[in-house]
Amino acid sequence: MIDPVALTADLVRCPSVTPTEGGALVLLEGLLSGAGFDCTRVDRNGTSNLYARWGARGHARTFGFNGHTDVVPVGDVAAWTHDPFGAVIEDGWLYGRGATDMKSGVAAFAAAAIDFVADTPPDGAVVLAITGDEEGDATDGTVALLDWMDRQGERLDVCLVGEPTNPDHMGQMMKIGRRGSLTAWFTFRGKQGHSAYPHRALNPLPAMARMMARLSDHVLDEGTDHFDASTLAVVTMDVGNPATNVIPAEGRATVNIRFNDAHSGAGLIAWLQDEVDRIVGETGVSVSMETKVSGESFLTPPGALSALVSEAVQLETNRVPEMSTTGGTSDARFVKDHCPVVEFGLVGHRMHAVDERVRVEQIHQLKAIYGRILTRYFADAP
Amino acid sequence: MIDPVALTADLVRCPSVTPTEGGALVLLEGLLSGAGFDCTRVDRNGTSNLYARWGARGHARTFGFNGHTDVVPVGDVAAWTHDPFGAVIEDGWLYGRGATDMKSGVAAFAAAAIDFVADTPPDGAVVLAITGDEEGDATDGTVALLDWMDRQGERLDVCLVGEPTNPDHMGQMMKIGRRGSLTAWFTFRGKQGHSAYPHRALNPLPAMARMMARLSDHVLDEGTDHFDASTLAVVTMDVGNPATNVIPAEGRATVNIRFNDAHSGAGLIAWLQDEVDRIVGETGVSVSMETKVSGESFLTPPGALSALVSEAVQLETNRVPEMSTTGGTSDARFVKDHCPVVEFGLVGHRMHAVDERVRVEQIHQLKAIYGRILTRYFADAP
Repeated sequence: MIDPVALTADLVRCPSVTPTEGGALVLLEGLLSGAGFDCTRVDRNGTSNLYARWGARGHARTFGFNGHTDVVPVGDVAAWTHDPFGAVIEDGWLYGRGATDMKSGVAAFAAAAIDFVADTPPDGAVVLAITGDEEGDATDGTVALLDWMDRQGERLDVCLVGEPTNPDHMGQMMKIGRRGSLTAWFTFRGKQGHSAYPHRALNPLPAMARMMARLSDHVLDEGTDHFDASTLAVVTMDVGNPATNVIPAEGRATVNIRFNDAHSGAGLIAWLQDEVDRIVGETGVSVSMETKVSGESFLTPPGALSALVSEAVQLETNRVPEMSTTGGTSDARFVKDHCPVVEFGLVGHRMHAVDERVRVEQIHQLKAIYGRILTRYFADAP
Repeated sequence: MIDPVALTADLVRCPSVTPTEGGALVLLEGLLSGAGFDCTRVDRNGTSNLYARWGARGHARTFGFNGHTDVVPVGDVAAWTHDPFGAVIEDGWLYGRGATDMKSGVAAFAAAAIDFVADTPPDGAVVLAITGDEEGDATDGTVALLDWMDRQGERLDVCLVGEPTNPDHMGQMMKIGRRGSLTAWFTFRGKQGHSAYPHRALNPLPAMARMMARLSDHVLDEGTDHFDASTLAVVTMDVGNPATNVIPAEGRATVNIRFNDAHSGAGLIAWLQDEVDRIVGETGVSVSMETKVSGESFLTPPGALSALVSEAVQLETNRVPEMSTTGGTSDARFVKDHCPVVEFGLVGHRMHAVDERVRVEQIHQLKAIYGRILTRYFADAP
């Protein structure tokens, strides 16, 4: 029986601040290899990732876990109660950077998987796809693992991402999708001039104000079956003109859109470009736009996988987890193109903050939930 | 005969950068006293002003000139072709800070007045009200002179301000009024939050954008008999939020209004307050407003005074000056409450800029115009 708390502590002691491997994946590789997992380091552009598979290839059912061992920087070390890489346990809390996000999650699913295949070897395969680049650009992490899997003919039938999903209590919430996120930066250019002679200038600010008002007033949707309504926030508008008698040449504005499955990044960009063309046509101001889609929206509709996870959570916690699509992005946004994916993990206490810590009993509880999921998944095999 | 070019040069050599007297008013006081003018230094709060009167008090007609000897800073001295306080004459140009704005104007009306009262002593009075605080806050300049005059029972029947009024050529333009100027600073306050959860925040930027769009779209008027249409310019909007996932708590915007005689500062402030109340009611964002009226609009309707000036300009320049109300503010905005006032002066070449300079022959021409105005004014006396 693998102790997931001891494994969490061992992982926390590895200073694996993105993009440093820090010994965390090496540790897991040794542990999993010893337990009969076929391990491959899938490293790309200086980023380390680990692919570990137990069981036969081919037509057997394959259950995948996804997680990351990299952590965000510790910030002000002096502000921490305990060494952020010390894994000190006090009053039932394990302290350390990555304690909840998400070395405990990785430890829980690694421990559950090792015990499961040892106790009841399934007619199928269990895969752990663990990345060292989730907190960074995420360009050579889970994406690299999925690319490598495609080339090797490796595949998962379903995947569970072990990120923290519970706001306050274990069992409150699982994630079956996420909203997408799109940021657009606009620059409005006119012609500088004197405030007393606006007809000799071309003030870009009325165009900027009118377009930002329009975007703010636009109702993107009223929400969909599993998603809240999409939202658009004007997050900044800047000119920096200190002279009240000068009409400025340029203004800049930024909007951030969180969008549900009624939209795509490309569709929203096309809409924004239409709005740009409209304001240009109305005002003669020139407008440039840059955009970045940091994640498309996605949904794994409620079904066998989410029911399986929900049932295991209920049995361990006596709570029915909400099937939520709220929150920021995770690597599930990459996995969803490969197979159905849901997320369930710990309570996200003080993630990215000073004194990040996790309740020790919740790590045991999470291992038990993951164990139940594996048992039931393979028991239900056709 | 007073040489107005030599007098201009003497004045340019006085480094009278606001609020420094720099010897300029002392020089004029000596000159005018010697010519029979009754001179009074009207100094207030460290600002120097000079009131010089020739002629009897009482019911006689009094013609006033108004001007200033203070100048704006020289800026980058190294960029000047000649010493900005050197009054160097080269190729027919007299160089120096204040060469056009407006030591040449003061020199021209002082020279014209001295010669006029010496040659043809009028049945009336000639007053020179010269301030050392026009380029600064102007709170202790012409206003101080007018306050003092009120207390002393001194009065002008008409006044000519000698500021540069011609865009390119002598005789092009005189001013019979000016638009007013009002600046309003708005601060929009909401509640900060995460871009992904806008319903938990109160974004002040849609309110700011909508209100600035409304103000920009509002037509204040279509112009009046002697004025262009009033204008409103949004001159800046600023937030300074670098984080695309954060909804900011606050945004600031500034508008500048140049208004004609269809409006008053108070009326416009009331309208802006209505727009503030409207956006607050619509959005729940709190909005504070600060305003400053730096000048009300005013008009001296075309009549005897403007006709007198126009005729003198035509006789000297063969141009019919446009009776304009364009441009920024001048001390005429104070004088207009005392008596009819018009403005005529030099070509405003490089005012406030490096290498400010004036055509020497235009100083002579301006003195001649002012002389014709005095002669005709008193010749027309009832």
